[in-house]
Amino acid sequence: MDFRGNFKVAIVGYGYWGPNLVRNFTAAEGAVVSHVCDLNAERVKKAASTFPAVAVTQSLEDVLSDPTVDLIAVATPVSTHHKLALLALKAGKHVMVEKPLTSSAKLARDIVATAERCKRQVFVDHTFIFTPAVQKMREIYKRGDLGRLLYYDSMRVNLGLFQHDVNVVWDLVPHDVAILDFLLDGRMPVSASCTGVAHFGAQHADLAYLTLKYDDDFVAHINVNWLAPVKVRQILLCGDRRMLVYDDNSASEKIKLYDSGVNIERTEDVYQALVQYRIGDILVPRLDTGEALEIEAGNIVAALRGTARPVCDGHAGARVVSVLEAADASLGLGGEPVSIEGQRAGANTRIA
Amino acid sequence: MDFRGNFKVAIVGYGYWGPNLVRNFTAAEGAVVSHVCDLNAERVKKAASTFPAVAVTQSLEDVLSDPTVDLIAVATPVSTHHKLALLALKAGKHVMVEKPLTSSAKLARDIVATAERCKRQVFVDHTFIFTPAVQKMREIYKRGDLGRLLYYDSMRVNLGLFQHDVNVVWDLVPHDVAILDFLLDGRMPVSASCTGVAHFGAQHADLAYLTLKYDDDFVAHINVNWLAPVKVRQILLCGDRRMLVYDDNSASEKIKLYDSGVNIERTEDVYQALVQYRIGDILVPRLDTGEALEIEAGNIVAALRGTARPVCDGHAGARVVSVLEAADASLGLGGEPVSIEGQRAGANTRIA
Amino acid sequence: MDFRGNFKVAIVGYGYWGPNLVRNFTAAEGAVVSHVCDLNAERVKKAASTFPAVAVTQSLEDVLSDPTVDLIAVATPVSTHHKLALLALKAGKHVMVEKPLTSSAKLARDIVATAERCKRQVFVDHTFIFTPAVQKMREIYKRGDLGRLLYYDSMRVNLGLFQHDVNVVWDLVPHDVAILDFLLDGRMPVSASCTGVAHFGAQHADLAYLTLKYDDDFVAHINVNWLAPVKVRQILLCGDRRMLVYDDNSASEKIKLYDSGVNIERTEDVYQALVQYRIGDILVPRLDTGEALEIEAGNIVAALRGTARPVCDGHAGARVVSVLEAADASLGLGGEPVSIEGQRAGANTRIA
Amino acid sequence: MDFRGNFKVAIVGYGYWGPNLVRNFTAAEGAVVSHVCDLNAERVKKAASTFPAVAVTQSLEDVLSDPTVDLIAVATPVSTHHKLALLALKAGKHVMVEKPLTSSAKLARDIVATAERCKRQVFVDHTFIFTPAVQKMREIYKRGDLGRLLYYDSMRVNLGLFQHDVNVVWDLVPHDVAILDFLLDGRMPVSASCTGVAHFGAQHADLAYLTLKYDDDFVAHINVNWLAPVKVRQILLCGDRRMLVYDDNSASEKIKLYDSGVNIERTEDVYQALVQYRIGDILVPRLDTGEALEIEAGNIVAALRGTARPVCDGHAGARVVSVLEAADASLGLGGEPVSIEGQRAGANTRIA
Repeated sequence: MDFRGNFKVAIVGYGYWGPNLVRNFTAAEGAVVSHVCDLNAERVKKAASTFPAVAVTQSLEDVLSDPTVDLIAVATPVSTHHKLALLALKAGKHVMVEKPLTSSAKLARDIVATAERCKRQVFVDHTFIFTPAVQKMREIYKRGDLGRLLYYDSMRVNLGLFQHDVNVVWDLVPHDVAILDFLLDGRMPVSASCTGVAHFGAQHADLAYLTLKYDDDFVAHINVNWLAPVKVRQILLCGDRRMLVYDDNSASEKIKLYDSGVNIERTEDVYQALVQYRIGDILVPRLDTGEALEIEAGNIVAALRGTARPVCDGHAGARVVSVLEAADASLGLGGEPVSIEGQRAGANTRIA
Repeated sequence: MDFRGNFKVAIVGYGYWGPNLVRNFTAAEGAVVSHVCDLNAERVKKAASTFPAVAVTQSLEDVLSDPTVDLIAVATPVSTHHKLALLALKAGKHVMVEKPLTSSAKLARDIVATAERCKRQVFVDHTFIFTPAVQKMREIYKRGDLGRLLYYDSMRVNLGLFQHDVNVVWDLVPHDVAILDFLLDGRMPVSASCTGVAHFGAQHADLAYLTLKYDDDFVAHINVNWLAPVKVRQILLCGDRRMLVYDDNSASEKIKLYDSGVNIERTEDVYQALVQYRIGDILVPRLDTGEALEIEAGNIVAALRGTARPVCDGHAGARVVSVLEAADASLGLGGEPVSIEGQRAGANTRIA
Repeated sequence: MDFRGNFKVAIVGYGYWGPNLVRNFTAAEGAVVSHVCDLNAERVKKAASTFPAVAVTQSLEDVLSDPTVDLIAVATPVSTHHKLALLALKAGKHVMVEKPLTSSAKLARDIVATAERCKRQVFVDHTFIFTPAVQKMREIYKRGDLGRLLYYDSMRVNLGLFQHDVNVVWDLVPHDVAILDFLLDGRMPVSASCTGVAHFGAQHADLAYLTLKYDDDFVAHINVNWLAPVKVRQILLCGDRRMLVYDDNSASEKIKLYDSGVNIERTEDVYQALVQYRIGDILVPRLDTGEALEIEAGNIVAALRGTARPVCDGHAGARVVSVLEAADASLGLGGEPVSIEGQRAGANTRIA
Repeated sequence: MDFRGNFKVAIVGYGYWGPNLVRNFTAAEGAVVSHVCDLNAERVKKAASTFPAVAVTQSLEDVLSDPTVDLIAVATPVSTHHKLALLALKAGKHVMVEKPLTSSAKLARDIVATAERCKRQVFVDHTFIFTPAVQKMREIYKRGDLGRLLYYDSMRVNLGLFQHDVNVVWDLVPHDVAILDFLLDGRMPVSASCTGVAHFGAQHADLAYLTLKYDDDFVAHINVNWLAPVKVRQILLCGDRRMLVYDDNSASEKIKLYDSGVNIERTEDVYQALVQYRIGDILVPRLDTGEALEIEAGNIVAALRGTARPVCDGHAGARVVSVLEAADASLGLGGEPVSIEGQRAGANTRIA
């Protein structure tokens, strides 16, 4: 902490996302950014010129050994997350880790357990769940407007930059799995079926199609693709009362709530249920303004103070990694469903 | 044939699609509609009032026994297609059958074999491939504009009417499988992985997600859904040279050709291939006007005359049914990949 | 009337719009179409083949002299409306006349006066005001949702067919002036200022920009154009409480109601009024289905029976023509404002 | 100049636009920002914290008396432009002035004449003409793709902030008049007809509709509005060969070139010209990336060096003001056309 009682935050890793972390933790009430640390001399120099008030260093030890640093935000490649988080926790720091938390569920659980032993907090940077649109989705669902959820269908495609350290599942699917985890208060899917192809070199799938099944008839489908000529960021979240479409490309109509749906009159013979469609008004709710990462930084400061619960803690991060791991395993099996606990899921007998 | 040398066409089944068949065969040069036949008295009456020049009947025998009838167009529920087609062929008539041709590959092959024995022709009504947009897609691909195909991704969702006799796979997927068959000149996928859920009653899946793999790295994904609040009819067809988007909802810009893509410089180490994105102009080609079913009727008349090859014959119809059958089997197995020949496909080892 | 008590309707003029009139009066409860009359032999033949139950003739006298004909619908070029309407009225028939009612306010007033003398009714076919979208606009305004109206701004452009008998003002502006007349219960603008250009030949302006001023600070602007590469049919109707956008191109979201606006706190010094913007939810109301002309035909039958007031009578038609006449006069004066009564309007001193 | 030969730029006025000027002149090769000057202490403080390397002052004299300052960028309210520009020029500085250059043509001409006397350059900040979209529009027109220009139609509406010092004509119309001036190489319209209304207080029109006529049959129409619930930034630029639509709201398809138009076959009788529509492909050209103001700053540096002609000099700024002045005069006259030279234009006899 500094002498004013602000939490001191050190940013480790100053690539694409680093400047956003500096900017938003600087703006957050109750926090100051004390260090930027990166192995790369060029990046450190750039940080120094953009943020003259922040100390820069190429040595992680400088950060770990500074007793006034409260939180280390880790924004490095996924493969280094586990090691860096453990170093930070063991040095007595709280940690915030970029998504995905780790490259395996085992490593994620190790971070969570270490944090508990060290009595430190872990935050995972699933920024999307702090956007006004996702906050509004959850609010609409929680107040019952959608009724019982039937499905979630996401298309997240673009002519995106290849991420050479991970495939498209580990790169883009975390957004949707984190949103689902947030909507469902941590309820987990039971199995994952994932298909995809690596077109360029043998290493990494560049598009993938994932279906997640839950223990009832709710289902989630996630279409991710680095090779699309158009940018699509669309989610359908449909319940038996109302249906919602979230189009992140729209400037002024991101969320639309359709008072449309299906009316079922159950009869004794389930094969003869009367089905009728209903089409009604559409509501486009006004969304709060505000940058997601700024709201997230505020939540982290409050959690450190003990005045709020963390929205996205290490358990949430570990749950998301468990799902990704199962998805990746199914991808390797050509779509064969994989149980989220790692065992093969049986066929869903309710579907014909 | 009538005395002017026009082929006489009888329509069997006068439900949703029947009036379109009457109208377009009437408009087609070289054809006349002689009969409308339906078991339902109400429908027969309606046909008589709309098309006073056409004979109506509730008896199939009236049609089969009329030696001047050349072609029977079967627009009845799927479960009756095989029986009606065989009756027609054995009575010496050519047949046109609504999509899907049958409810199993075995029955489809039986129709094809029967037609060959009877020396009659079979046409399958995959209307979509006669639309100006799909014709343009194929023209663009065939002239090499797209380069090597990478993937086909279709989203076909709506608040549609439940089809109580078949699930959403048999109802909506035939459109895409027929388009793929047309684009690829009959090249078949090797395996299908399909997931989905039946939300209302246990009988029929109301949404499904299908991945088709081919013997190279081309992949097709098809998202079909009867429970969506918005109508989406979008196909991405991407090659390594250019990419195409087909949005059937757009009135004036159905097809967009993106001069965008990925430039790969292969190096000895495939893990280090240099990947660069390229963004260029977009072209929206003018499409022909004209109703698809009218063009299709014209092709059928020409095929009967022997002056053109049928665009969509019984073999094409049977190939589509083989794919649907594998998709449906995979759906029952929770997404486990099923070989198009009916055997379980191994995992695709090229994907990680 | 026929023996069942249905009003008998004769259609005079069987061009682009004629078939729609036959179809919708046939569908209307309480009406039958008895005749189609057109000078052109080809058109008469076409009407006979499409509507075998209707008598066709090239002689207007056949229609006028038939005592059972109740209503004559005139769908001929504008220049003939006055003459035909007077012949019909004097023969004791009610008349429905295509928009615009006449080519001058004087002739329109003569039709109205003649109808009153003959105790017959006049209807003007401003079909647009019977569309579900315009009906909803009026309902929203009438129940006070918009507050005090500030402006109406319409853009109505297309690569349209040239209308060789009238310029673009007489062709397209009637839609908007009729909608305004319907929204405002016949309140008239006080002046028109219109600019435009005739690019092809000297005869007819192919684009025009019209401003209509009212006796308060409400203003209407209408942009019409036959030379636009895109079709735009958009109206903004804004009040001091809420604002509405009507996009006729949209399939599912024609009307959007914005809970946005301006909050003014009037101070003693009007130059210092505090102005604050307010942005809120957007509502897309469900619209009734149904064809406008069918609803219109129903209103005409009810008016003939005396069970409803006509929505669009001769007075409304004459008011619209008065506005068009002033607009056309201003167009000839290069935009100089012309009073709707035909005199030059003074400058609006409230504008700087 | 600084010791490296960079032009030194002082920014006078640090409101909404000031930070953009500092940022882009800092980024421009060959320029450095030496001062920010504003009467307001709060703003000066903010500039100092955002740009620590720049000297800040509340005294204009500090800037004028510094002999190393080469260019003064004036970003203050319009009413102060003339006075500040003259002080700068007489102190031997070049000036860049925000749009509009002045509030009257007389004052604009005085700035131009003073600059010539002082042998200094004047630049007017019509940023829009440096956008990649407007640059592409001009390129397409100049290479003949559009053929002969028929009309320009702009809609520029929003729920914008009221500008209390000027009405909507002086606030928003400069964008379009500057684009027209740029497209037409300075060719001036001959008359302006403008209507509009001030709804809130008597002072300033909040919406306006302007028609500009040229000495041939080209016409420009500009619809500006501060009270619209939706943001529209659309320009139609149509020629007799092709037509272009510029939609500034679109992220990836700002410019569309329609190979559509009108084919005229002139006959001896101009009233009988054969008119046929042609609908063809649409091309969406790729646009350069790059911030407009950065490109503009580069042009200004080059002009100061004498290596390029200024794209937007004082003459251009004065021409734009002349058009605005006529538009405003016509607005006061209720739409009566006003000649751009200040005299009343006669009626355009070519229009009927």
